[in-house]
Amino acid sequence: MSLVVAKFGGTSVADLKRVRIVAGHVASCRDEGHDVVVVVSAMAGDTDRLIELGSSVVQQPDPREMDVLLASGEQVSVALLAMAIQERGLRARSFLANQIRMRTEGSHMRAKIQSVEVKRLQENIASGVIPVIAGFQGIGADGDVTTIGRGGSDTTAVAVAAALEADECRIYTDVEGVYTADPRIVEHAQKLDRVVCEEMLEMAALGAKVLHTRCVEYAHRYSVSLRVLSSFVPGTGTLICEEGEEDEMERPDVSAVTHDRNEAKLTVTRVPDKPGLAYKLLGPIGEAGISVDMIVQNVGAESLTDMTFTVKREDYQQSQEILRESIAELSDELSEEQVQLMNVVGDDSIAKVTVVGVGMRSHAGVATTMFETLAQYGINIQMISTSEIKISVIIHEDFCELAVRALHSAFKLDVAHPLAN
Amino acid sequence: MSLVVAKFGGTSVADLKRVRIVAGHVASCRDEGHDVVVVVSAMAGDTDRLIELGSSVVQQPDPREMDVLLASGEQVSVALLAMAIQERGLRARSFLANQIRMRTEGSHMRAKIQSVEVKRLQENIASGVIPVIAGFQGIGADGDVTTIGRGGSDTTAVAVAAALEADECRIYTDVEGVYTADPRIVEHAQKLDRVVCEEMLEMAALGAKVLHTRCVEYAHRYSVSLRVLSSFVPGTGTLICEEGEEDEMERPDVSAVTHDRNEAKLTVTRVPDKPGLAYKLLGPIGEAGISVDMIVQNVGAESLTDMTFTVKREDYQQSQEILRESIAELSDELSEEQVQLMNVVGDDSIAKVTVVGVGMRSHAGVATTMFETLAQYGINIQMISTSEIKISVIIHEDFCELAVRALHSAFKLDVAHPLAN
Repeated sequence: MSLVVAKFGGTSVADLKRVRIVAGHVASCRDEGHDVVVVVSAMAGDTDRLIELGSSVVQQPDPREMDVLLASGEQVSVALLAMAIQERGLRARSFLANQIRMRTEGSHMRAKIQSVEVKRLQENIASGVIPVIAGFQGIGADGDVTTIGRGGSDTTAVAVAAALEADECRIYTDVEGVYTADPRIVEHAQKLDRVVCEEMLEMAALGAKVLHTRCVEYAHRYSVSLRVLSSFVPGTGTLICEEGEEDEMERPDVSAVTHDRNEAKLTVTRVPDKPGLAYKLLGPIGEAGISVDMIVQNVGAESLTDMTFTVKREDYQQSQEILRESIAELSDELSEEQVQLMNVVGDDSIAKVTVVGVGMRSHAGVATTMFETLAQYGINIQMISTSEIKISVIIHEDFCELAVRALHSAFKLDVAHPLAN
Repeated sequence: MSLVVAKFGGTSVADLKRVRIVAGHVASCRDEGHDVVVVVSAMAGDTDRLIELGSSVVQQPDPREMDVLLASGEQVSVALLAMAIQERGLRARSFLANQIRMRTEGSHMRAKIQSVEVKRLQENIASGVIPVIAGFQGIGADGDVTTIGRGGSDTTAVAVAAALEADECRIYTDVEGVYTADPRIVEHAQKLDRVVCEEMLEMAALGAKVLHTRCVEYAHRYSVSLRVLSSFVPGTGTLICEEGEEDEMERPDVSAVTHDRNEAKLTVTRVPDKPGLAYKLLGPIGEAGISVDMIVQNVGAESLTDMTFTVKREDYQQSQEILRESIAELSDELSEEQVQLMNVVGDDSIAKVTVVGVGMRSHAGVATTMFETLAQYGINIQMISTSEIKISVIIHEDFCELAVRALHSAFKLDVAHPLAN
C-alpha cells in the first residue's frame, strides 16, 4: 500500500460530468490499493469569472480581497468533488487551507507555501477517508486568505505530498505527458516515459506549459516523485525523476525541442562600455514587475556595444517606454552626445527555439548540429543563449515550426527513442 | 459616535450596481458619524445556484460538503463589497466565519451560533476599518464550515451586534419596514415606525417575511435594538423595540393583520378519547421534520373527537400518508372497529388570517370585533387559535384578501394610526 497525492486541474473539473470522471480516477487509484489524497483547482473558467467580477468593482482591486474572492472557486470544487467521491461509496472530506494550516508567506495573490499541518490529514487517511484539499489557497498572517498565483494548485499538491511523504504526486492534466516536442507541430513527437528534473525545469521555464517551474523546483527540492498524466486518456504519463534514475547508457544528447512564441526582443544600440550601465537600463524593467529572459551583449568597436534582451510579448510596449526613460536619465553621467547616440529598437515577431537534454553535458557537438541544421534550412539566428543542458536561439517567428521539426529530426527524436514509449 | 451593525441581504447585493449602492449606504452611515460593521449575504440567486449544483452531483448531498459549497457564496459577496467600500476611499476588510471565530453548535446546514470573537473586529473598528462579515456561515467542531440555515445572515448580524454591544442593528432589505398589513393587498396599509418585539415574533412566525423568527428572538434575548429598512428607498424603516419603549397610552388594540396562504389543514375524524392518542398521531409527523402549526381538538359525543391541525402546504401529501400509517399501527391498542371508524380528511385551500397586538392583552373585545367583522362578510371560520397577543383564524383561501382588508378597516389601521408614519 502506498500513498498517492493526485492533483486535478480546472479543465479536469470543468463541469459535473468531468467531476464524476475525476471521482472515477480516485476510485480506481483506491482499487489499486493506494491511499489517496486529492488536490483540486477551481472549475475551469471560475477563476477568470471571479477576476472579472472583482475588476468590474474596482480597477485595482485590493489584493487581500481579491484572494478572498478567488479562493471561493476552490471552495466550490472541493465540495463538489468530495460529494462525487462519496457517491461512489467511498468516504471523502473536503479541506480548505485554514483547516490544514496551509501557511504561506509573502504578498497576497503570489504567496509562497511555508508549511502544511499533516496531523488531521493523517488521521483521516488512517480512518479510510479520502481528503480533498483546496489547491491554490493558503493562510497568511492573522489567518487571512492568501492565494499562491496561477497554476498554484500544482505546488499545493507537491507541498502536500512532501509533508505527507507520499510515494508519488500525480498531476492530472489535459495532456498525456511530456513530449519530445509539441505534438501539434511535430507529427512524430514522442511521449517521454521519464524526464530528468533539470530538463523539466528548463522546459517549464521555456514555456512548455505542462507544469509550472515552481512546482518542479519544489518537487526537486523535497525529492517528491512527480508524474504528469491525462485526466481524459488512460496511460502512465511521464515521470519526472532525478538524474541517475534513468539508464545513463541509453541517454540521448537531446531529450526535447521546445519553442516559445510569446517573446519580444529589445536592443539598446550604442551603449557606452561603462560599468553599471546594464544595471541602470535593466533595473527599472525588473522593478516594474517585468521579467527579462535572454540577455546578450558584446563589446564592439569604439567602446560602444549593443545590448539585446527578451521579455514576454505583453510587456514589449511598456519595456520600450521604460528603456527610453532610463536612457534620458543617463544624462547625469554620460555626455549629451553619448545619450543622443543611444537608441531603442525592438522586434516582437520572434520565436525562441530550444534543445534541452542532460545528455549534452557529456556529448560535444550539440551546438554544431543545431546551428548546421538551421543553416541548412536558411534560418537566421538572431540571438544565442546556452546553459549546461540547453541551447536556445531566437529566430524570426515565421520559421518557428520549420526549425522545431528540423531539429526534432536532426537529434533523432522522431524515431522512438530509448526513453520514449 | 455610536456603533451600527448593518446587514444587507442577497437582493441588496444581487449585482455589482447594487453592491455599489450598498457601499453608498455604508459611506452615508459613516458620514453620520457612526462606526459601521457590515454583514452581508450571498448575491441573490447564488445560494440557489450552489444548491442546484450540489444536488446535481448527488441526490442527497453530504451536509458537511453542502455547507462548504454554500459558504462560498458569502465569500464572494464580502470580497466584492469590501472592494466597493474601498473604492469610496474608506478602509474596509472582509472577515470569514473562521477569522472571527463564529462558533456554532448543532448539525450542518442548520447550526446555531454560540459565540463570536470580537477582539479582532474591535481592533479594526478602532483603527478606522469597516469590517465586512460573511453572514450565514460559522465554524463547528474541528473548524469545519457550517451554515446556519436560510435567512441566517440576519441572525449573524444580531449575534455580531450583541457581541460588540452595538447601538443598533440595521437589517437592510427589499421592503421599507413592517406594515400593518401586506401593502399588496391593503392599499391603505401603514408602515409602522415601531413594533414591539413580541408582536414582531408573532408576525415573523405567521409568515410576514420581513425578518426570521430566530433573528427577532435573538435580538430580544440579547436586547439588541433592531431596525428594518430598505436598501433601495430612503427612510427610517421600522424599529423593533421592547414593550414599554413605545407610548402605552397611544397603543392600539391591534397593530397588524397578517395572513399566510401556505398552510393546509388535516383532520383525523372519530378519534377515541383516550390519553396518548394525540401524541401517537402527531409524533411521527414531527419526526419526519414536518412542523405542525395550529392544533384544535374538542371532545364530542360518544367519547369520539375530531382532531384538526395545520401544516405547511408542501408537507400536506406526506402528512396524510404518515397519518394513515399511524392509524393502522393503532390496532395494537384499539379495537378493529375503532380503527376502521377513524378517517383522515384534509383541505389545502385554506388561508390563515391573524390579528396581532400587545394591546389586546389589556383590551377585551378584540375577538368579538374580529368574528363580527368576518360574519358581516359571510366568511366562515374553520378553526380558531389564540395566544395572549394574537388571534388566528383559518378560512377558505378565496376569502383571504377580503378578510385582511375588512379586519384592517375594522381595527382602524387604515387611518394613520398613532405608531404609523
